[in-house]
Parts: sequence; C-alpha cells; structure tokens
Amino acid sequence: MDQVILVKSLYRHTAEYAGKDVKISGWIRTLRASNAFGFIEVNDGSFFKNVQIVFDNNLANFKEISKLPISSSISVIGTLVETPDSKQPFEIQAKEVIIEGMSNTDYPLQKKRHTFEYLRSIAHLRPRSNAFSAVFRVRSVAAYAIHKFFQEQGFVYTHTPIITGSDCEGAGEMFRITTMDLNNIPKTEEGAIDYKQDFFGKETNLTVSGQLNGECFALAFRNIYTFGPTFRAENSNTARHAAEFWMIEPEISFADLEDDMFLAEAMLKYVIKYVMDECPEELQFFNQFVDKGLSERLNHVVSSEFGKVTYTEAVEILKTCGKEFEYPVEWGIDLQTEHERYLTEEIFKKPVFVTNYPKEIKAFYMRLNDDGKTVAAMDCLVPGIGEIIGGSQREERLDMLKARLAELNLSEEDYWWYLELRKYGETKHAGFGLGFERLIMYITGMSNIRDVIPFPRTTGTSEF
Amino acid sequence: MDQVILVKSLYRHTAEYAGKDVKISGWIRTLRASNAFGFIEVNDGSFFKNVQIVFDNNLANFKEISKLPISSSISVIGTLVETPDSKQPFEIQAKEVIIEGMSNTDYPLQKKRHTFEYLRSIAHLRPRSNAFSAVFRVRSVAAYAIHKFFQEQGFVYTHTPIITGSDCEGAGEMFRITTMDLNNIPKTEEGAIDYKQDFFGKETNLTVSGQLNGECFALAFRNIYTFGPTFRAENSNTARHAAEFWMIEPEISFADLEDDMFLAEAMLKYVIKYVMDECPEELQFFNQFVDKGLSERLNHVVSSEFGKVTYTEAVEILKTCGKEFEYPVEWGIDLQTEHERYLTEEIFKKPVFVTNYPKEIKAFYMRLNDDGKTVAAMDCLVPGIGEIIGGSQREERLDMLKARLAELNLSEEDYWWYLELRKYGETKHAGFGLGFERLIMYITGMSNIRDVIPFPRTTGTSEF
Repeated sequence: MDQVILVKSLYRHTAEYAGKDVKISGWIRTLRASNAFGFIEVNDGSFFKNVQIVFDNNLANFKEISKLPISSSISVIGTLVETPDSKQPFEIQAKEVIIEGMSNTDYPLQKKRHTFEYLRSIAHLRPRSNAFSAVFRVRSVAAYAIHKFFQEQGFVYTHTPIITGSDCEGAGEMFRITTMDLNNIPKTEEGAIDYKQDFFGKETNLTVSGQLNGECFALAFRNIYTFGPTFRAENSNTARHAAEFWMIEPEISFADLEDDMFLAEAMLKYVIKYVMDECPEELQFFNQFVDKGLSERLNHVVSSEFGKVTYTEAVEILKTCGKEFEYPVEWGIDLQTEHERYLTEEIFKKPVFVTNYPKEIKAFYMRLNDDGKTVAAMDCLVPGIGEIIGGSQREERLDMLKARLAELNLSEEDYWWYLELRKYGETKHAGFGLGFERLIMYITGMSNIRDVIPFPRTTGTSEF
Repeated sequence: MDQVILVKSLYRHTAEYAGKDVKISGWIRTLRASNAFGFIEVNDGSFFKNVQIVFDNNLANFKEISKLPISSSISVIGTLVETPDSKQPFEIQAKEVIIEGMSNTDYPLQKKRHTFEYLRSIAHLRPRSNAFSAVFRVRSVAAYAIHKFFQEQGFVYTHTPIITGSDCEGAGEMFRITTMDLNNIPKTEEGAIDYKQDFFGKETNLTVSGQLNGECFALAFRNIYTFGPTFRAENSNTARHAAEFWMIEPEISFADLEDDMFLAEAMLKYVIKYVMDECPEELQFFNQFVDKGLSERLNHVVSSEFGKVTYTEAVEILKTCGKEFEYPVEWGIDLQTEHERYLTEEIFKKPVFVTNYPKEIKAFYMRLNDDGKTVAAMDCLVPGIGEIIGGSQREERLDMLKARLAELNLSEEDYWWYLELRKYGETKHAGFGLGFERLIMYITGMSNIRDVIPFPRTTGTSEF
C-alpha cells in the first residue's frame, strides 16, 4: 500500500473510499489517548479540515504513538469508515501508524488561541494554524482565478520589469537599487554620485506600477494583464499598507472608460465566485470566526449590479447627506476612506464606481474630458474597504499628453517611448490596477494586510 | 453593428461567420492599393495571423484609406468571405473602414526584416513584429500552463518575499535595497553604516530564490509552488543570463528525490504539450524561421521517458567517450554546459536527470547521501540548452543541517526559522527550481534571453 491519498480527496469522494483501506500522511493537530485507544486529528495540508484517526493498543507502537507531540508528522494506513452521526463525516481506523518526524514538545502553536500579532512573529509556522491555512489557500485560489479569468478571454500575461529607471506616476516613494559599495560610493570629478559605475549605469528603483510598460504590450496584443510585485517606500504604519505587495494591471485597447468598468466588475465577480465555489470550508470559517457579515456581503457583491456616480455627484451627495466627516468635503479634494466607505456602505449599499475626478488629483496619463477640468478616471469602492480598484481611460492624444507632462514639470525625454506609442497607431485604450492584498482582505474579512501576505514587508520589518 | 469580434475567433470558427457581416479593429501591417481597390493586412493582437481586408472605391473615404501609413489603427465592418483557394482561409470585404489612429510615416517597424539586436532597442514596439508577437504570446500561455498544472493538483501558489534580509544559498551576488540618502549615508559612532536608519532597519537585498520561504509553506500545505521574479547581480554579459528573471519553485512534502524528478518531468511535458495545443501557429513560425529542428525536438521530449544517470556514472561516461572537452572532466568538478549538452544530445539523445552530485559543489540544504560524499541533488538537462531544472531532496535532519552550516561558516542564528522547521514535525521533502526564461527559450528556439523577456535587465541595461 504505497499510494498516499490526499485528505481533500477523501472529503470530496468519501463514498468511493468507504470501507476501503487508505494511506494518508500529515501532521498531528490534536491527540488524546487512554490505555486502550486514542484519537488523532491529522491535517495533511491539502484541505482545510483534519481527518480523524482512531487507533488502539493492537498496534505494536501504540504507546509511542500515544505520546507523540503535536505537529509530529505521521503516515497512517487504515480503513475509512463513514460516521454519519458524528461531527466529521468519516474516520480512519488505523492498522498502521508510521512516525515520519517527531516534533519537539515546545511547539509554539499549541491548541490554545493565539493573537494574530503573536502569529506574525512565527510567520514560518503560522500557515499551520486554521486561520492562516485558510487565508493562504484562498490567496492561491484567488490568484489562479485571476489568471483563469483573463486567459480564457485571450489576454496576454505580461511580465513588466521590477527594476526600473523610471517612476511611473512621477510621484511614488521608491526603493533605490544598487550594487555600489555604500562605504565607498564612487564619485564624479564634480563630486556627484557616479551612477555610471553602478550595475545598470544609472539610477534604478523598484517599480511602483507596470502600467506604462503594460500599455506598450496592449498596443500590440490588444488585451493584456500584469500580475506581479510592486513596491512603495512609504513610511506609513497602517493596517492597509505594505512596502511590498502584488498588483494586477489589465490594459485594454479599442476600449473606453465604460469598457474598463465593465471589465473590472466582471473580474471581481468572477474571482469572488470562483473562491466561493472552490473554498467553501475556508469562507465558512472566516464568516464564523473573523467577520460575521462576510458571506452575506460576498453573495451580495456577486449578485448586484455595481453602482455608478460621477465624482461631482458624489461630492454633492456627501455635502448634503448630513453626516459629519473628519475631513470636510469640497469639490477638488481627494476622497478619503471615510467618504468612500460612506458612499458604498450607506448610500449605495453595494460596490460603486466613482468616475471623472478632477485632473489635479489624478495622474498625468489619464484622459482629459471635454470639460477641461476632469479626467476619465474611475475608482471602484466596496463596502468594508473603500477603494479596491483605480483605473482610467489613457490619454491617447499626443499633444494633450505632452501638455500634461509640461504642466507637471515632467520631462518628455524620460517618457520618449511612452510618447511614441501615441505616434504609431494610437487608439483609445484603458486599464486599471487592483491591489491583490486588498482583494484578499475583502474576500477573507481579515483586517490587517500583514495577515494576508506570507512574509510581510513593512517599515522596519523584513524578517524571514 | 457595435460588437467587435476578435480575429482569433474568426480563424477558429470561420464557417460560423462565413457570409455574415463582422466588425474587427486592429493595426495595419501591410497595405497596397490601386485606384480602384486595395488590400490591407490587419493584426488585432488576439492572434498570430493577420486578417485580409479588401476595400474598393465605393467607400467614401477610399483615398484616405489608400494612403494610411503602416501601424495605423482602424476598425472595419464588412462581410466575411471564405477563400479556400488562397493563402489565407478567408477575407473581409469592407463596407466601412473607420480610422482610429493615424500612424506617423517614420514607424520604425517597416516590413523589411530587422535584427533582434535592433528590435531590442525598440522594446516598446517589438511585440508588434511577428517574432516577438509569437514569443510573448507563448510566454503568457506557458505561464498559465504552469499555474494550471500545479493548481489542478492542489498545489498552493505561494508569494515568497522579493525583498529579503537573507541570502538563500549563502553565495549569490545580490542587489542592495535602500532608502538612505546615498549622498549622506547615516553612520554609527564607530563609523559603520547605520542600517538602523534604513527603511527596514537592517541590510536588505533582492531575493535570489524563494526556496527557504517556500519550505515553510510546504511543511504546512504539503505541496506548494512559487512563481515570481528573482535577481542576480552577476556581471556576466552572456546570452543566457539576465539580472532579473522569473522562477518557478515547487516544494513537496512526504517526498524524496524520485518524487521530485517525477514531478519535474510531468511538469515539463504538461507545459510543452499545452503550448503545442494552444499556439500551433506560433510554433510553426519558430520552426520555420528561428530553429528548424524545434518541432521535432518538442515532440520528442513530450513522448520520451527522461533518462537518469548518477553524477559518478556521468563523469565516467564523459571521461571514456573519446570526446575532447574544453574543460577536462574529473570526479568533483561542476559540469559545464559543454558536458551537459554532450550527455543529453549525444549520449542520451533526450532529456536526462543527473543525480547525486558531490556535496562540495551543491548548496547546504541538500540532503547528504549515506556515502557521506554526495547529496540527493538532481539537474535536468535538455538538448539544445543544458541544465533547465535544478533540484534536490532537502536535508530534514536537524543535526546534519547544522553540521553543514558549520562547515560552510554560515551562522545558525541567520537561519533560526529554517532550522525550526526541522524541530517541529519535519518530514522528508524535496523541490526544484525552473528558470522560466530558459523554458521559453527551449520552447521557442530563441537563443538570447534578452529576446524572451518583455523589457530585459542586464548589466548596463535598464531602459524602458
């Protein structure tokens, strides 16, 4: 009996295995034993739930097994027996238990409940806990759903560069990359840093967005998406910001802002639906222990048509709604999270797109509307989070784009290749960015971004 | 008539559209016209092949269209007519041609053939050429195939950190990350660099491998894989090395070196087969214009069982084969590409795994064999490339692992969390790394790594 069966398979096809001998392997989550028999809950990592092993003193190594510490790894051969009257649908009556690896008894994840803060300090072990086992399986399944959604429609997955000589939005706080000896930085005769002697021969940073590179590919492949890590060197110690996070950035040609919103709505619904179908046990856990309203909210998002409101209308609504905000609302301000959440939670009670923002608060590449004051931007706001997606139709008119660069004191030279896209067969096109961690927080109800990233990087934290 | 049809759909379902009016949009690849009629080849980015548009002087804007520069973007409404006697299976007889974006006439990608070197200098436009349109679509499809392969077997996709405080193999040349002012680096009282004042409060680098972090997750989820960017600050200007590249690193628990090789072989075959099924037009192009033996080689790989040979046997074969190598072969040397290629191309004539290398030439985490001299490592060699995959069973025995760290003067403190994995329910486990660009070179026959990366980063090069 050599073929190990995954526990997920036992749960999904219980009837097929009933009465038969199976072999599983995994890690002990709980163990209790008397002199005559005992129970072990084993998790094999393939499934959220454990499998219950029943063993008795007919086994030669009964005593040894009875004393195994939590987290020891074992293999078990035994008969699968359905147990319709119990909490779990079946158990395995052991004929043989093989000890693969004995754990030390000071295993830090004993059965008692731990705080998320404590678990962050043992990020190498926390995926073995219920909560993080669920979070990171959902993260994996959601990532796959994103690929599936785009690939099934023929979008080309594009790996835009991580190391970059340019600052996409002309604004981000970036991490510098270098191979120069920091104890002895080469200088020019004038005393400036001699970047010619650095690895790339010029200043380089970690990317804050793949969009500009993505546009190059969209104007060749029509529809593309990126899915990769991005970086912000912001010194903000909040539950929503990390220095390293993953972003999805689709870019579509022959498309305007309406097409962009259509795509964003379809993608969000597809991914959430896919996770609901593939991870029901995990979502049930989150709904029970992390965020009581989660299931209702996700169901609601999947089945409702997203709202739409212009920025100008949204400002009017917020000014006249009677609610006192910490940050007062006036046309021209950037909406704060409190405003965004009020709009989506109290006014619309569902996800909503806010469109056509003042050009002053948006990036240079967004398409100027005919009013000369606003740009064809859209933010998608969702209950419980606020902004989850930001996108726009891109400025495809060369003269307008150059005028915006000039207004913002950005150099045409730095953007020569981006500008050339407008010289050689430009077409209307659009795109958006989705912060992957925000999406996972939204789907799981987890409230701190540090708890949806395997090994989070934030100010002062790069352990593991 | 608003619904645009993708050209791929017209090619795949021609009969359904025959005789009907369709609307397409895309970029002009070629145009020739007389006074009475003309032909346009349009590529819409959804498909490798162009669609032929026939237009005549019944169109009101006939003259304007006749003069459109290459790469202009247009929309076309017209009747799809099957043309069984022509080179292309159908054409569209235009009823309306709408000019979306007029290209400048100095478009750098005119019809004549360009060198790959030249095309690298216009990386923002090169995906519009036949070769790079094929390369980057194959890259996207292969990436998806990798996700599909692992996800269908329940592997958990794990995003390991890009910014890291540790050097996985204790060997790599790494890029330093900092937010310190390089003109004014903070110093301690002793005159050393004061990393406490850097963003993460310590020295940080770009990752060279996600493996050690991946092992943490494999010991929770059993089977995991990573797929993300990795970095090497090597000053080597070869056709096979880039400073930034993507890597796939699966890690499997309750598994030994045999299981590892089984997984590697299954994965390679799956991905190649998937690309052959999804991108026949692209592969045909590569076989015709880039690498004449490509189709035969790929077919051969998919249908042959990979060979297996130990390092010790391989050294014997190379020493006695009669071939003069540039680097002489002795037990203990690291195999060079010339040796690897001779083994896979001349001796085995198919992909081959070389196993059980001397421990001195392999990383500290590889499992020591009972002979005390070799480790349970495997490299997968393929014809035309040499090594494409490197993997091993991991050293799961705490005392052995500590002994190896000590031998290599690596500090236990730096690896505290990696060592703890061996304290709390360790089990035999294994994994490997696949360089994604090497795989794409292998599948396409492209011989320079710069030509399979959208915007390559190499020594001195970070443009775009």
